[in-house]
Amino acid sequence: MSVLVERMTLAGVGLIGGSLALAARKARLVREVVGFGRTRANLDVALQRGLIDRIAADEAAAADADLIVLATPVATCARLAERFRAHARPTTVLTDVGSVKGSLVAELEAAWPDPRRVVGAHPIAGNERAGAAAAEADLFRGRLCIVTPTPRTDPAAATLVRALWEGVGARVETMTPETHDAILARVSHLPHLVAYALVTAVAGRDEDGRTLLDYAGSGFVDTTRIAASPAEVWRDIALGNRPALGAALAEFRAALDALERAMASGDAAALERMLAAAAQVRQRLGAKS
Amino acid sequence: MSVLVERMTLAGVGLIGGSLALAARKARLVREVVGFGRTRANLDVALQRGLIDRIAADEAAAADADLIVLATPVATCARLAERFRAHARPTTVLTDVGSVKGSLVAELEAAWPDPRRVVGAHPIAGNERAGAAAAEADLFRGRLCIVTPTPRTDPAAATLVRALWEGVGARVETMTPETHDAILARVSHLPHLVAYALVTAVAGRDEDGRTLLDYAGSGFVDTTRIAASPAEVWRDIALGNRPALGAALAEFRAALDALERAMASGDAAALERMLAAAAQVRQRLGAKS
Repeated sequence: MSVLVERMTLAGVGLIGGSLALAARKARLVREVVGFGRTRANLDVALQRGLIDRIAADEAAAADADLIVLATPVATCARLAERFRAHARPTTVLTDVGSVKGSLVAELEAAWPDPRRVVGAHPIAGNERAGAAAAEADLFRGRLCIVTPTPRTDPAAATLVRALWEGVGARVETMTPETHDAILARVSHLPHLVAYALVTAVAGRDEDGRTLLDYAGSGFVDTTRIAASPAEVWRDIALGNRPALGAALAEFRAALDALERAMASGDAAALERMLAAAAQVRQRLGAKS
Repeated sequence: MSVLVERMTLAGVGLIGGSLALAARKARLVREVVGFGRTRANLDVALQRGLIDRIAADEAAAADADLIVLATPVATCARLAERFRAHARPTTVLTDVGSVKGSLVAELEAAWPDPRRVVGAHPIAGNERAGAAAAEADLFRGRLCIVTPTPRTDPAAATLVRALWEGVGARVETMTPETHDAILARVSHLPHLVAYALVTAVAGRDEDGRTLLDYAGSGFVDTTRIAASPAEVWRDIALGNRPALGAALAEFRAALDALERAMASGDAAALERMLAAAAQVRQRLGAKS
């Protein structure tokens, strides 16, 4: 593939941003990557590993960038856009990798000189590792990346962002920010909150002098794996997707209540019917990730 | 180790029962294993794989057994004990492998000619596979097995059951049936109900014409893995451990409500504090299984 971007400024050189930079450089989609971030030690790792070409110390990181990628926690993105705007060209495209799109894309459009050049994106990939040291060129290969243009978005800007993600091996799908948020609230944000709540409910408790967590088997461990995710990231996602996540929580509570009612009333047939329906769906889902 | 049991009757030759038989035979703890079960094809597999020495077609399976192991869904155990009692010796020890102990052990004590010879046990091991074909001799190696004698239990009977589980490599711990149920309600039964409810909440729904489950990533997949477990087994466990599971559900709801309150009120600091506390606990738990 030919070069898409002469200069890309990457704010936040962690697992997602660093992997994108590494993959884009390997595929020769990007001529130069300028790295910007909070922690000098992490940027040094990124430079040593060849994720970025150079480190920028301040908002001049945005100078002469064709594309700026915000790969920081969601709540930081709009503030970064404000800092970068004075240094960007009129045509610079601004994108992000956040797990929330509706509120974030609206904030970025409001913050950017030309809102037509803002394109939200969300690669659905990652693992529990963090930082530039965890970046992998193949992280997005075969994984889904959702791109969320709005009625204001310049089609050429959306095409550039799509091409970047396709170039690093992702399957790209386009939908509105609102549809993205409604879907992700159910299949991602809800399971995260539930996993955090499960750990919270069990943590620190004992029974007859025995620490409950000493008895956690593989079921508990799997069900709560995502509760090891960074609190700061999930705080921002929960706050950024409140209405859809609130609706998802209500749906989840209704399902749990129905199971508990069948159990409490001793309705074995209803309980088995509900469990069997869920088990069948989950078995079809398999072990895909 | 020397032979502990001349003849063991195994009712239910699935993953747990079959693995116990295979491991006990390999370790020469048992001279003869008689298999009993619902499905002839599964018993044939067990015979071919050498899990059992012979198949018994009816309750005479219990004849001359030193030890009867009930490894069927929990709700079936008491009925089986009733069927076997006329054929058992006065000294035959009756044990089980159920995930619920309080109500089940009480039922077995009531059903057995000599309640002192009843010893509840629960090996905390397993995977999503099922049937004699899934049995593995090493399934219990290094895993916990909880043995739950009551004030009525004959110490010699409890020692026999402990020795069997230690002989197949399990770490054996003794506690009351009530303590077992309180602990397992939190670390096992609750996560199962939550996982089933998560799948139920998402299954069959779509958003803007898109099937939600098509967007499930590794987080959803891990969090719901145990919802693929057999409905019949978990119906019985939920019904058999109602009071403790009800209490566990209340604790979980309180934790989830607190997270949602912080989210709904936009209290970023409280939300991050709760998520961070859970993440720290979960990180310490690691990937153990």
